[in-house]
Amino acid sequence: MVNHSRLGEFDLIREYMRPLTLAASGAALLNDDAAVLPTKDGHHLVVTMDTLLSDIHFFENTPPHLIAAKSLRVNISDLASMGADPAYYTLSLSLPSDGEFKYDADWLSRFSQGLAIEQELYDITLVGGDTVSTPGPLSITITAFGWVKTGQAIMRSGATVGDLVYVSGTIGDAWLGLSALRGNFLELKPPSLEFVTDSYHRPQPRLDLGQQLFGVANSAIDISDGLVQDLGHICRASKVSATIKTCNIPLSGPACMLVADNSQLINSLISGGDDYELLFTVPKKSDKTISNIAKKLDLPLSQIGLIGPSNLNHSVTIHDEEGTEIDLTSAGYQHF
Amino acid sequence: MVNHSRLGEFDLIREYMRPLTLAASGAALLNDDAAVLPTKDGHHLVVTMDTLLSDIHFFENTPPHLIAAKSLRVNISDLASMGADPAYYTLSLSLPSDGEFKYDADWLSRFSQGLAIEQELYDITLVGGDTVSTPGPLSITITAFGWVKTGQAIMRSGATVGDLVYVSGTIGDAWLGLSALRGNFLELKPPSLEFVTDSYHRPQPRLDLGQQLFGVANSAIDISDGLVQDLGHICRASKVSATIKTCNIPLSGPACMLVADNSQLINSLISGGDDYELLFTVPKKSDKTISNIAKKLDLPLSQIGLIGPSNLNHSVTIHDEEGTEIDLTSAGYQHF
Repeated sequence: MVNHSRLGEFDLIREYMRPLTLAASGAALLNDDAAVLPTKDGHHLVVTMDTLLSDIHFFENTPPHLIAAKSLRVNISDLASMGADPAYYTLSLSLPSDGEFKYDADWLSRFSQGLAIEQELYDITLVGGDTVSTPGPLSITITAFGWVKTGQAIMRSGATVGDLVYVSGTIGDAWLGLSALRGNFLELKPPSLEFVTDSYHRPQPRLDLGQQLFGVANSAIDISDGLVQDLGHICRASKVSATIKTCNIPLSGPACMLVADNSQLINSLISGGDDYELLFTVPKKSDKTISNIAKKLDLPLSQIGLIGPSNLNHSVTIHDEEGTEIDLTSAGYQHF
Repeated sequence: MVNHSRLGEFDLIREYMRPLTLAASGAALLNDDAAVLPTKDGHHLVVTMDTLLSDIHFFENTPPHLIAAKSLRVNISDLASMGADPAYYTLSLSLPSDGEFKYDADWLSRFSQGLAIEQELYDITLVGGDTVSTPGPLSITITAFGWVKTGQAIMRSGATVGDLVYVSGTIGDAWLGLSALRGNFLELKPPSLEFVTDSYHRPQPRLDLGQQLFGVANSAIDISDGLVQDLGHICRASKVSATIKTCNIPLSGPACMLVADNSQLINSLISGGDDYELLFTVPKKSDKTISNIAKKLDLPLSQIGLIGPSNLNHSVTIHDEEGTEIDLTSAGYQHF
């Protein structure tokens, strides 16, 4: 049932992808059924997989190098949250088979060039994959592998009552970027507009931070679903609850400006997702260590809340500036 | 842009998949961003990835446990062709989001039960993955990992002039099964019909054979595209050519019967694909070793041809029973 008429095209795709495998001799230039890769003594293998679909996870008209960047970075961010060091990835491309073939040689060339840039940035190498023709939308599945020193992976499940909740960078910029791409927040001036859309297109996996957090953080996660939802994931895995204060949420200049005009916007910023910042919990005694890491990495690390005892829903309580509890569910935020 | 209204459903999916991870403590019950897995001393990691789409790689109405079987087995077959031992896999499910949700709890339950059976059979464990909602067809991407003793992987690129070409099992049954599912070969009686459709639905990865071939075979590949096409892959990777004789192709009872009625059918059987038998080349002196392996494994291993010197296209020449060369390309077989 394979669409054999497209196999010639798939050979073409392989030609574009082949140069990306040069750093991994075991990938045998995508010639074999599988890649054969050396392991790393004293390390565990860390594996993550994410699928991105056109018009669900990125806009169809997104430049190919940015689709490549996002597809790879959301996976690298998962590795970062575990404290792992990226090594390899496999890529499955499902290319739309509709008449007008917009995923042509030019698109593939720009997509593979985008991957090449990311590989250089994050020291990760393509080692295999698959390409199929689909009547559905463009779909990109990446499985990424990294190494973490044995016993040094940071899990979601280690949060402890009394832990301080920290987050890296600023929150909500990617959601603003997505909203701007949809035609909202037209009051944003060009540099701010570029900043938020770039935050959406090119998340910054916090690899250095993840690797510094071993022995310091009790739990960590990268923010993909939204700060509140992902803190909920930590709470459920760790069987604890959490309280955060919106006034402690770190915001970028553009986000600050918009929240100053509309204070309700903070609710969207903390539940919009796609931040790919690290959210982590540390024992109270480690707050000095965290400020040292922040200085060393030149990366803001903000304390936004506290871990409390288990409650029925392992839930996250949010307080606004006046200390009033915010109920995001009633505001239509179903996704946590 | 995530379809948040479906996240509840995805939690449900996770509930079905969670029990499949029990054998891998590092998968942390699908709770974490990534799985943390032990490596194996003295072994290399073998990685393969395949995507299967509804109505391209399987019929939409295929029972879910058979979709599970095929999706996993085509990947395990890639591991088998390298001589690797299966260990883990990740799974990305893209579930159609159309109104009538046929991929409901019942479907998911039967799909995950199918995976559970395969896991038991092949000693492989789910360690992570992703689930997305798609406007396209059901799509299943699996990345499978195995271990091979360092330096003992068998590649496509080792075929040497003078090598004998061997194939395991029988060829063309899966293609007959696919054709039967499309309503052809109605002359096949129930037991034969079941045999060929089962060959299509549940390929038998030749793991034991792959592991026996180290030190014996110079090259190996599993037959997914078709015997002739996959032999072409070996030729191109090894910079050699090959000649095979159709009278040496091992056929099952049902295939024999059909070829007796229509001798042209052999061309479809050797180019139809989906066999997932191993195709491998060995030096002439090893023919005795191969018969011993065949006896030991109780698996037919048939010599079907010879490796010759490189020619321009690294091509495969096919001779029929009378020794006349068959030109499959002119017969409309574009896919090699």
